[in-house]
Amino acid sequence: MDTTLNKSMKSHEVITPTDLINHWQGHRGLTRRTIEAFPEEAFFKHTIGGMRPFSEMIMELLGIAGPGIKEIATGKSAPLNEHFEHGNKKAKILELWDEATKEIDTYWAQIKPEQFQQNIKIFGQYEGTVYSSIFYFIDNEIHHRGQGYVYLRSLGIEPPAFYER
Amino acid sequence: MDTTLNKSMKSHEVITPTDLINHWQGHRGLTRRTIEAFPEEAFFKHTIGGMRPFSEMIMELLGIAGPGIKEIATGKSAPLNEHFEHGNKKAKILELWDEATKEIDTYWAQIKPEQFQQNIKIFGQYEGTVYSSIFYFIDNEIHHRGQGYVYLRSLGIEPPAFYER
Repeated sequence: MDTTLNKSMKSHEVITPTDLINHWQGHRGLTRRTIEAFPEEAFFKHTIGGMRPFSEMIMELLGIAGPGIKEIATGKSAPLNEHFEHGNKKAKILELWDEATKEIDTYWAQIKPEQFQQNIKIFGQYEGTVYSSIFYFIDNEIHHRGQGYVYLRSLGIEPPAFYER
Repeated sequence: MDTTLNKSMKSHEVITPTDLINHWQGHRGLTRRTIEAFPEEAFFKHTIGGMRPFSEMIMELLGIAGPGIKEIATGKSAPLNEHFEHGNKKAKILELWDEATKEIDTYWAQIKPEQFQQNIKIFGQYEGTVYSSIFYFIDNEIHHRGQGYVYLRSLGIEPPAFYER
């Protein structure tokens, strides 16, 4: 396929793979700043209405993001793991977050453009397309981060600006 | 351009315009069920940590969604309006929500595929691309709905399942 056609195709896409990873990594930067905004003890213990502490929501996101993109890129499925050793240290969670950021970038570069519309059973159990799985990863992060914002407000702490990425 | 080529192009897109509107309307259905889950008084009055009641977040979403897609489709800009007459009736908000759903579908059909990557200054003030504006509309809805989930949990009410669209 010649370059002219490729350019023409690109200009008619809703969002390119590069746009999408930049969009997500922008969100991930905001989630990182949300983690940073929590006092250490509240991050692991503060809850509202019987929900999980924000640290447990973040571990869910850690279990999904890197491993999910790795599975999409490599085709190798592994069961979902949402538990990580952290010793009640926010710094450990931030370290895992930064490792995931690199892992996502590494494996994202290996996803072929034609894969996004293909079917997948992610983590061996969730059926959808590759794009719908990735959108789920992002949407789920936004959803839980929004909950983290309420936790922060209830602690009298101003969350980072939602629109800054 | 012949049909074979069009098919080939489509199969290489991350997400098509139709996929994206279906994705969003799926989210909008979930947000509607979240509104329904609130007791009427709590919808207009319950708050945590000095935040807005869920009704005010929903009015923000109402001000963005229909008018935003209308502006993208028609090129006619209008200032953001986040206030609607509701008389403290959830039914009125749900009626406005359903009107917005139809308005979004109507104007979505008028958006040309090549527009998504074009620049826009939405509501006369927010610069970005058409796709980044639409993603903002969706992400902002997920963000505030996640906050609504915490409000519901703090009231002892189970929110609708996040993964059901």
